[in-house]
Amino acid sequence: MTRSADPAPYFRAHLFVCCNRRPDGHKRGSCAASGSETLRDYMKVRVKELGLRDIRVNMAGCLDRCEYGPTMVIYPDGVWYTIRTTADVDAVLEAHLVRGERVRHLMLPET
Amino acid sequence: MTRSADPAPYFRAHLFVCCNRRPDGHKRGSCAASGSETLRDYMKVRVKELGLRDIRVNMAGCLDRCEYGPTMVIYPDGVWYTIRTTADVDAVLEAHLVRGERVRHLMLPET
Repeated sequence: MTRSADPAPYFRAHLFVCCNRRPDGHKRGSCAASGSETLRDYMKVRVKELGLRDIRVNMAGCLDRCEYGPTMVIYPDGVWYTIRTTADVDAVLEAHLVRGERVRHLMLPET
Repeated sequence: MTRSADPAPYFRAHLFVCCNRRPDGHKRGSCAASGSETLRDYMKVRVKELGLRDIRVNMAGCLDRCEYGPTMVIYPDGVWYTIRTTADVDAVLEAHLVRGERVRHLMLPET
């Protein structure tokens, strides 16, 4: 839980894209096998193009929500998205980060 | 910024350990070259041993605070730590996650 004495956020938004890769044919699949690495690369380019500051895009190991992959999470907000296409990435960046909105149809269920 | 309509946090605490590796001799060094992968593995074991639930430990790409590495960040709190030894990992897990405290001497500066 955040405490009042905690430092201010170092990044305004810290985005983690699951880039876990399982062997082909694994029953859970994996985000990398669903193209997440390419989408992460695209996201990094678009963050720069949009001039978004104090934002960091990182790859991450398995976020354990494989059934919704490719998945990402934005902290400190704690909002999770499925990003299947570059259009999904654009929607998340432009709505969540630029306008401070949410992209409801791409958000993962709460549990 | 978190919104009141956002889902409850999926993980009570989501820990990201930088596991970026640069070539030997790189002037910025890297967290993996400073042993972060072993510390990440240790952290995963200790989280289980401590019976901590709703906690996820993930590797991450370069968190871009290399000068303090090996680094980690705990979200949604947004608190950053340097973890150089397994004793540092234990201190962070037992203070921050078990007791809800902070380990001031391991925290990264605000900027």
